[in-house]
Amino acid sequence: MSAGASLSPFTIAYQTYGELNADKSNAILLCHALTGDQHVANHHPLTGKPGWWSALVGPGKPFDTDKYFVICSNVLGGCMGTTGPASLNPATGRAYGLDLPMVTIADMVRAQAMLIDRLGIDTLFCVAGGSMGGMQVLQWAALYPERVFSAMPIATAAKHSSQNIAFHEVGRQAIMADPDWRGGRYIDQGVRPVKGLGVARMAAHITYLSDEALQRKFGRNLQDRAEPTFSFDADFQVENYLRHQGSTFVDRFDANSYLYVTRACDYFDLAQDYGGSLARAFAGAKTRFCVVSFTSDWLYTTAESRAIVHALNAGAAPVSFVEIETDKGHDAFLLEEPDFLATTRGFLRGAAKARGLSDKGSDGA
Amino acid sequence: MSAGASLSPFTIAYQTYGELNADKSNAILLCHALTGDQHVANHHPLTGKPGWWSALVGPGKPFDTDKYFVICSNVLGGCMGTTGPASLNPATGRAYGLDLPMVTIADMVRAQAMLIDRLGIDTLFCVAGGSMGGMQVLQWAALYPERVFSAMPIATAAKHSSQNIAFHEVGRQAIMADPDWRGGRYIDQGVRPVKGLGVARMAAHITYLSDEALQRKFGRNLQDRAEPTFSFDADFQVENYLRHQGSTFVDRFDANSYLYVTRACDYFDLAQDYGGSLARAFAGAKTRFCVVSFTSDWLYTTAESRAIVHALNAGAAPVSFVEIETDKGHDAFLLEEPDFLATTRGFLRGAAKARGLSDKGSDGA
Repeated sequence: MSAGASLSPFTIAYQTYGELNADKSNAILLCHALTGDQHVANHHPLTGKPGWWSALVGPGKPFDTDKYFVICSNVLGGCMGTTGPASLNPATGRAYGLDLPMVTIADMVRAQAMLIDRLGIDTLFCVAGGSMGGMQVLQWAALYPERVFSAMPIATAAKHSSQNIAFHEVGRQAIMADPDWRGGRYIDQGVRPVKGLGVARMAAHITYLSDEALQRKFGRNLQDRAEPTFSFDADFQVENYLRHQGSTFVDRFDANSYLYVTRACDYFDLAQDYGGSLARAFAGAKTRFCVVSFTSDWLYTTAESRAIVHALNAGAAPVSFVEIETDKGHDAFLLEEPDFLATTRGFLRGAAKARGLSDKGSDGA
Repeated sequence: MSAGASLSPFTIAYQTYGELNADKSNAILLCHALTGDQHVANHHPLTGKPGWWSALVGPGKPFDTDKYFVICSNVLGGCMGTTGPASLNPATGRAYGLDLPMVTIADMVRAQAMLIDRLGIDTLFCVAGGSMGGMQVLQWAALYPERVFSAMPIATAAKHSSQNIAFHEVGRQAIMADPDWRGGRYIDQGVRPVKGLGVARMAAHITYLSDEALQRKFGRNLQDRAEPTFSFDADFQVENYLRHQGSTFVDRFDANSYLYVTRACDYFDLAQDYGGSLARAFAGAKTRFCVVSFTSDWLYTTAESRAIVHALNAGAAPVSFVEIETDKGHDAFLLEEPDFLATTRGFLRGAAKARGLSDKGSDGA
């Protein structure tokens, strides 16, 4: 799917880890989620925190950088170096704002394909990612089946549900309701809609955790006090936690970018580009798939993953499906979940063997 | 639980339907939910819409106004006539705003008890309500067991969970982020934080519906168009629906009131007032209970209702528990769900018999 507009030139910011082998057969593309970025396994330049998938990517880790050449690029519409609404519009000399054409998941993937071309890589050994990253994985497999040897769509869906769209719309309305949003022209005017963006993040963050995880982590515990204040202060730990999520997010993310990436997800409905048949999107695929879901993920449920698996089965694609038991909710895909790590390691090992990649290193459990 | 402040004098606005019988044994108190009000079975004076429980309350309906005297009052902290933050503070001559003491569910119930006293009613035949209304029902049974012959807590919980608090906090932050909130003093300044309140309502509304209901009602259908606009307009029906929910809500509800009633729910933890034991809250209760939950309600789940039932069982209280199968989510308690109507009718009929109320009228199915 595409909004029909073109954008040229554009910049893609990316990171790589490990080394590309001689026959360029060991490249893995990792696709980041909504508010992720290319800093998958290095400390983040703005927050100083470890990369978002440092649990999975590194020497001896499932995405073993001793063995694989790992690439991650900031998505089109993002705000960490790739062209997005905060980038300078060469036609006007100011930030694009909402003049940036709408970006779809397919646009993100086509931009990544241009990067992969530039790196001289014909076929990716694996494309993997969770959440919006998983949507890109599915889109890669559909658009470029011959360029994807194996694929891991994790905690994702082949289309955004009504509830998914609803939550995104709340976030967007929170941003646009902030008078400092200025119709998207806040950069020109030296302000930022930090309150609206903070509220958007708070609402979204609830969907990333399970009810059980919130109960276990925070329950009804009070924040630094024995008795409630009976006020609108952050009496409860969960309130304090959410406010912190909101206030730190605005330091690293652009509000218009949030509008674009949420909208890209909303418009994602892979089957629609294939006559309404998801099976047709993957018809004749030789790509080896490992579809992963998490039991307590209520944002992109196991049922959504099963729909992907059924479509792959219909096309007789090689697919394994793993539902990981966890109470951590959607965010489990970012965490050090032992079963998830073992699944990833096992799938990649099998794929590497099939691909004829030498098994140097990576003998960890 | 109480914030420890006192409020005097205060006003309670209420509606009644049907007639109180000679021995005052046929009174039913209905407790409204978060943004409900006393207009349970008459057209709403502001919106012109039918009362929020007109499916259940009226001649021949489960809460049969030919048989029962039905009372519903606007909660303390509300904005439909009962004293709330928009009411005039006699001490200052302007609206209370945040100067109104914090209101708890127990405060709401104590205020209702004063109304019941004033009406000369000793024992209520039934206290019923859903959601925050159900919390009031539980609080009534705990505070005044001898005054409650039967009780129907519906789609509710004995305490607000971490996730419940989290969603409420998002709504409050959306309101307080609106510059027109003015630290709660917007009435004095002739403005209203309608954008923030609208966003709060949108976020909350998602929690009132199930994922399945949203999918069935809206799916990914576009609003009045065949092709997406690839913009931030309300392309999808679900977006249009949510925006409508937000924009109509602000016409009938006060933003500070929203802060107070959400906070009352957050502070609700009935067991806490009884040494952490919910069973103790209901110890020795003679009240006949009918606890109702809905399968697809993810805001106040069946598990929360079961916890109430277990506590009642521990105290050997007479209790029946009905889980209604529906895909409509939390809002099912407001809808004409046949099994729910039949349950209510059956429970009240049994209670009426036990109470020795003559069974005139009300022979409908």
